[in-house]
Formats: sequence, structure tokens, C-alpha cells
Amino acid sequence: MKITGTFLDEISHDIPHQNWGRAEWDADFSHMKAVGIDTVFLIRSGFQRWLTYPSKVVMREEGGYEPPVDLVKMFLELADKHHMKFYFGLYDSGKYWWKGDFQKEVDINLKVIDEVWKNYGHYKSFQGWYLTQEVSRRTGKVIDLYAKLGKHCKDISNNLPTLISPWIDGKKAVMAASSTITKEDAVSLKQHESEWSEIFDGIKGVVDAVAFQDGHIEFHELPDFFAVNKKMADRYGIQCWTNAESFDRDMPIKFMPIKFEKLRMKLEAARKAGYDKAITFEFSHFMSPQSAYLQAGHLYNRYKEYLKTL
Amino acid sequence: MKITGTFLDEISHDIPHQNWGRAEWDADFSHMKAVGIDTVFLIRSGFQRWLTYPSKVVMREEGGYEPPVDLVKMFLELADKHHMKFYFGLYDSGKYWWKGDFQKEVDINLKVIDEVWKNYGHYKSFQGWYLTQEVSRRTGKVIDLYAKLGKHCKDISNNLPTLISPWIDGKKAVMAASSTITKEDAVSLKQHESEWSEIFDGIKGVVDAVAFQDGHIEFHELPDFFAVNKKMADRYGIQCWTNAESFDRDMPIKFMPIKFEKLRMKLEAARKAGYDKAITFEFSHFMSPQSAYLQAGHLYNRYKEYLKTL
Amino acid sequence: MKITGTFLDEISHDIPHQNWGRAEWDADFSHMKAVGIDTVFLIRSGFQRWLTYPSKVVMREEGGYEPPVDLVKMFLELADKHHMKFYFGLYDSGKYWWKGDFQKEVDINLKVIDEVWKNYGHYKSFQGWYLTQEVSRRTGKVIDLYAKLGKHCKDISNNLPTLISPWIDGKKAVMAASSTITKEDAVSLKQHESEWSEIFDGIKGVVDAVAFQDGHIEFHELPDFFAVNKKMADRYGIQCWTNAESFDRDMPIKFMPIKFEKLRMKLEAARKAGYDKAITFEFSHFMSPQSAYLQAGHLYNRYKEYLKTL
Repeated sequence: MKITGTFLDEISHDIPHQNWGRAEWDADFSHMKAVGIDTVFLIRSGFQRWLTYPSKVVMREEGGYEPPVDLVKMFLELADKHHMKFYFGLYDSGKYWWKGDFQKEVDINLKVIDEVWKNYGHYKSFQGWYLTQEVSRRTGKVIDLYAKLGKHCKDISNNLPTLISPWIDGKKAVMAASSTITKEDAVSLKQHESEWSEIFDGIKGVVDAVAFQDGHIEFHELPDFFAVNKKMADRYGIQCWTNAESFDRDMPIKFMPIKFEKLRMKLEAARKAGYDKAITFEFSHFMSPQSAYLQAGHLYNRYKEYLKTL
Repeated sequence: MKITGTFLDEISHDIPHQNWGRAEWDADFSHMKAVGIDTVFLIRSGFQRWLTYPSKVVMREEGGYEPPVDLVKMFLELADKHHMKFYFGLYDSGKYWWKGDFQKEVDINLKVIDEVWKNYGHYKSFQGWYLTQEVSRRTGKVIDLYAKLGKHCKDISNNLPTLISPWIDGKKAVMAASSTITKEDAVSLKQHESEWSEIFDGIKGVVDAVAFQDGHIEFHELPDFFAVNKKMADRYGIQCWTNAESFDRDMPIKFMPIKFEKLRMKLEAARKAGYDKAITFEFSHFMSPQSAYLQAGHLYNRYKEYLKTL
Repeated sequence: MKITGTFLDEISHDIPHQNWGRAEWDADFSHMKAVGIDTVFLIRSGFQRWLTYPSKVVMREEGGYEPPVDLVKMFLELADKHHMKFYFGLYDSGKYWWKGDFQKEVDINLKVIDEVWKNYGHYKSFQGWYLTQEVSRRTGKVIDLYAKLGKHCKDISNNLPTLISPWIDGKKAVMAASSTITKEDAVSLKQHESEWSEIFDGIKGVVDAVAFQDGHIEFHELPDFFAVNKKMADRYGIQCWTNAESFDRDMPIKFMPIKFEKLRMKLEAARKAGYDKAITFEFSHFMSPQSAYLQAGHLYNRYKEYLKTL
């Protein structure tokens, strides 16, 4: 199964920054294209006070810091240049919905959506929206949040597609800053299906695709969880993608590029489950030949060899 | 003291994978040879479900995943090509003996030994066995495990040598996934001698060499522990090697290449204690000029300068 | 605001060693010069048993290990060659003052100062002293320690300048080996001012400059803390520098190069507060084009672009 999309990890929560300028990003889009990636997804446009573009909304209302570079503009220009599609990731306050106030998270994002569409909606490559608030369970009023934000994104942009990328609350669902790599209380397949059926029912029509992160469960659990996700997505008319994580969750260093064998297993599991599309988190740190992690360049080579076998 | 052997860290527990293909491994064997390494030790042939070769035994009995590449075959071919010796590391279930059932660990490994010798025993470079179950204390029935597996390895292979590489239960003996780098309850020299005398007595004749890992004690403790290990090994007719760890246990990043000064101190301590041979864990991540950790290439250069002074 | 000085992280507490030889250090001093760095600060000359130079004092009294290279001599020679200033960092026992015995820490350091000035004081580049014992609060008898050591450094060396580099006991002041990146009980601005006013009052005249580490507080707290530090320093006649950390404290990997945007914000905050000088911890791992962390080379490029805008 071929990876045709990647997240752009700006602003990052937990992956050290590579300090690339425009030249490096331009080259990276070329590297992506060379292996068939046609879509980039901005993981989030802002987090707490940090911003990827000079958002008047977030600077005024949340004390956002004015960024030195307008990354949204740069990514759109590069996507235009390389004939790729760009999905805009919304703003994550890092507080409102984290503390239960989902409506306030919706409110600030409605303004961000308006601002962004006005400023950047004319770019040819602006082709979709990423609802950046990630959950693993039916947490708080997340259905309401997805429904309202997804609807507004689509309404304002002549129905451009929307994507969410939840994680599965599996054994490896631990905090990045935790010293452990596994936990005891993983979600059961049944409970996962029950909660996500309810969520999908509440967001059908306004969320076009779901790409579950594939790294929080054990490798032998992939077939069962992937089958359930596909079944649910089909039932509610949502496209079922996989978010193939290209970093390794089994190592004490958080995080380094994944062993190719593991990535291959996850992609094969998605293929066998009949998934529609594979994207990755994320190319530039973990699969790029110019990554600061040299293991990534070797992963790129192994992945290219794999492509030839498809 | 010259390092003449290195582990090959496949399957890795805790070191991120470099995603090398055959070309990179071929080059690495050349880099090893250039500094006098004549023997490679596969740290383990399998761990839980992960495999270095398509083991019918482990796939059938333990649900092992079929690997994309037969690394055992590749390593043997490269060892043949570079005129090096290869030691095969046994299978680690990651459960049976971890939970006290040493006999079940023996049982699966007896089948692995048969399978491997039948499939790979004809390679010229297949020159020994590594008993992969590592302990620091007289834990459970580990004497029985070493004795049975060592005997079977030797019986089937016309007495090829066997190696174990325990660690010392010192101040730095903490889990890789732990956030700490030291612990309070280190073993005393006397208790260490008492337990390992009993182990050596039980495995003499079927284990030919012991290479204690040198990284878990303080540097000023090296002379005393090295002397005791040598004295015990001599008493029971076991060769005393050192496993000179080339990664740094004193840093919050687990793990990066060691500071050369520390490696040199450990090698000098082994030389002064009259050790027979030095091997390292491990060359390809921590000492290789093509390692993803660029500190390793500098360590390689510092080590080459040191070799000239010997 | 331009960075004109950098620490040299030998001996390191918590940053993995790069294993550079003289050639790499020589090249790095050139890279430093190219961006305007004119002063290097040895962070510490020894830590516990580890030494940067063959100190007879520490080897005899503290069981110090004889180092393979005399780094102090090498750094002084390179500083001479590159027309840079060198500040000598004192010895940190890692025990006496850690356990409350500040006088014993003073005693060993008085001997180190004598030894070092006798052996290396004639180098043209020997231009100052770094009092290596770092604190964030009025801890134990730290005022007494700074006062005695600072006075002896100045007395023996014809009044060469002395520097301290404390940290602020902010939200991010956690141990490097801790799994967390923040803590709850940060110091208040008022308490910080109260304790440091008392310290400054006790060390005025014998400590010439203070460079608070800038990484332990939140970015929006920079203006307030920087203003208070400047006000206090001015009141007591101490130069107010900033120690702009070039590594990122917000990431689970401890530590990688900082995102340029963050470094820029911290430098700008220092500029706005009217600081006298900016130095960094530290160039060679986190900003150098030859660092093992390739992110550092990109940070170097981003920083050079920033210099052009000043």
C-alpha cells in the first residue's frame, strides 16, 4: 500500500524542530513527490501561543506570538509549485478543550477558519481541512466540536473535504513526555467500536475521511482493529484511511524513525483491510533523505524498494 | 586492549533501527575489519514475535512474524565474504523465562537450534553460539537453561564454542525505558562473586566464554569487579572476555555513543585484569563511521588513534 | 541581539559527547568566529572524578581520573590562534556543596585556581573565570562560595573578570534525567527578586557579570524576569548578560537543538531589556554546522540570516 500523503509537523508538540528554511522545504516536497505523495496536511496551524502564520485572531485573543515566517503561505506556494494538495490544520488552544470547554475551542476556531479562508482560500492547492483536535475516545463534547468545525469548514469553502486522525487507546497510548512506552489499561476492541460508532454517527456528512493513527496497538492486533474501523467507516459513509506512523513507539528515545519492517506490516494490514488511502506522520523527520535523523534516509531507500514490489 | 568482536543488534530491544540494506551492512563489515574485528555475534535471532530469519519453529509456535529479509543468511554470507566468524544468538521469547518458566524457554530454543544448524550450519563462518538470555544474578533456573542450551549447541555442531554476556547488577542497572540512570541497591562485590561462582560451577564445560557487560558499575569499581570475574573464570576454566559497551549510560538520551575517554578506561581496565578478548555492544550504531549517530564516526577515529598507541 | 560567547561543554553532565579531536575543535572555533563569537567559557574543568586537564590537585584529593587529552591547554591554544578570549570554569565536586558543605567546595577550588593559574595563566587568551557552581535560589552558603572563589580568582589573576550563570527556578526547571519537562512549583517573580537581590548584594565587587540561563521560564514570562534581572544587576554594579540556551527544553528528547523562532524570541527579549551581552549554552552541539545533530547546522543558517537583519 502506497503512502500518498504526509502531515507537516508545524507546530510540533514533541518532535524537535529541524530549523529548515524555504530551500529545505522546497527540496523536501520534491522528495515527497518522488515517492508518490500528492497531499500534505498541516498538523495544526497553531498551538497555545505558537503560530504557523501571523493570525490576527490568535495574537489578539490568545496572546499568540507573531511567527518569523508565514509557513502557511510558504507551504501553499510550495504545494502550488509541486502540484500537490494542501489541507489546513486548525488551531489547538492546548487548554480550552483539554480542560473540558469544547465550545470555547469551537469559538476560537470558527474565527480562525474565517481568517484563513479569507487570506489563503484563493491558493489552488488549498484543497481541504484537517480538524486538529485528536482524541482516542468519545471524550467530552468532541462530537459536537467535530460537527460544528467540520460544517463551517465545508460551508465556507464550497464543500472542501475534512479529515480527522484519532488514535486508538491501545497499549502504547502513553504521553510523549512519559518515561514508559506502554500502559496496562488498553481499550478493548468492543469498547473501541462502541464509542467510535457513536462518534461517526454524529459527524457523518461533515467529516469526509478518518485516518486512525496506527501506532498505539500491538502489531498482531492490527487486523482486528483495522477491520472494525473499516466496517464502521463504511457504515457511516466516511472514507477510511490509515495514518501510518513512520516513527518507532517501542524505543526509549522518543522519537526516531521506525524500522522498515514495522512500517511495511502496518501498510500491508491497511491494504488487506481495504483501506482507501495511506498517509503518514510524518515524512520530513522520519522518512526524508534530508532528515536530521539519518535513519530516515535509509527508511526512504527501503520504502522505495518496497514500492517496486507493489 | 583491542576490540576484536562486536554484537549485531538484530532484533533490537531498545536501540532505534538504522534501516540498513545489504549494501550498508557490507560496508559496515569492511569498517569493522579495518579496525581488527574478526567476529560478529548476533545478539538474538528473535524476540517475542520478531525474527531475523524465517523461523518455521517460531512462526508456528509463537506466532512469529515472517521477516522481509533473512538477516541470518545475509550476515553469514557477509561474514564468509569478509573472512569473519559469526556466532548465532538464540531466541528470546520475552515471556517464558521472564515469568519464571525457564524450561519452556529451553524447549523452544532446542527446536530453534536444530532448525538453525540444519539451515545455516554449513556456512564456513558459522563458528559459535551466543546464549542470548542475559542475567545479572543467579535468577531462577538460569544455570539449568545455560547448561542445557549450551550442551545442545555444542553437541549438534561438533563442539563449536558458546558465549554468554551477563551484566553486573551495579548502580547503573536500570531499565532502558526508565527515566532514571542510576539506582540505589547495587550488588556488592562479595555477593556478585558468590552468585557467579555458583553459576560458573554449573555451566563449566558447556559455556566456553563469558563477556560481562562493562557499563553498569562506576568507573572506579572496574578494577575490583574485573579482577573477581577473571579469578572466577579462571577457576572454572571459562574464558574471560569483556563486553565493552560503546554507548553512554550516563546520559538522559538512551542511548548515544560513549565518550572515548570512558571506552578507553574500560578497555584499559580489562587489559590490566588480563582478559582474553574484548568485544563490544555494538559497532554499527555506536562506533561505525556510517552510523546515523555522527558521534560514532568520531569515536571510530578516536579509537583508531588509540590503536596506534598499543 | 548577537551572540558573542559560548560555553564549551566539557565535562558534560547530560549532553552526549561528540568525540571530537583537535581538528574538529579547531574547525569549530572557526565556525564560532564566523558568526561573531569572541569568547569561550569552559563550563567546568572537572566534575566528580572527570577532568579536562591533568589536575594533580583533583587526582590526589578526589581520586580524579587522568584525562587522555589536556583540553584546557588545547582550548587555550585554539583561543590564542583564533584571537578569542577563554574563561576557565572551576571544579564541581558533584558532592560537597550538593550535600550542603560549601566550605569544602571552596577549599578544593582554591587549590584548583592556584594550580590552573600557575599552569595556564600565561596564555594570552586566559581572560576570565567562570564560577561553575550553578544555583537558582539562595541555596545554602552559595553567597559565601561565590564571594570567596570570585575574590581568589581576581586576586591571583590581576583582577580578571568573573562570571556566574544561574538559572531561574521556573516551570521548566526539572532534572535532565527526569521524564517530565515541567513542574508545578515555579518561583514567583517577587521571590526571585528577593533572593537574587540578597545574593547580588553579597557578591558585588567579586562577580563581574551574571548570565541567567533563559530556558526555564515560559516565553511570555521573559520580559518580566529579564527586566527584574537587569534592574537588580544595575543596582549592584554587575553586568547583565543573557545565557541564551540553544537547546529545546520543551521536547521529550533531552536535548536537541532549539527551534530558531524560540532562540530569536529570547534574544529579542534580552535586547529589549537592555542586556549587555548574549552568550549561549552551547554552540558546538546545538548551533554548529559540524554538530552531530544536523538540526544544529540548520539553526546556524537561520541564525546567520537573522544576523543580516540586525
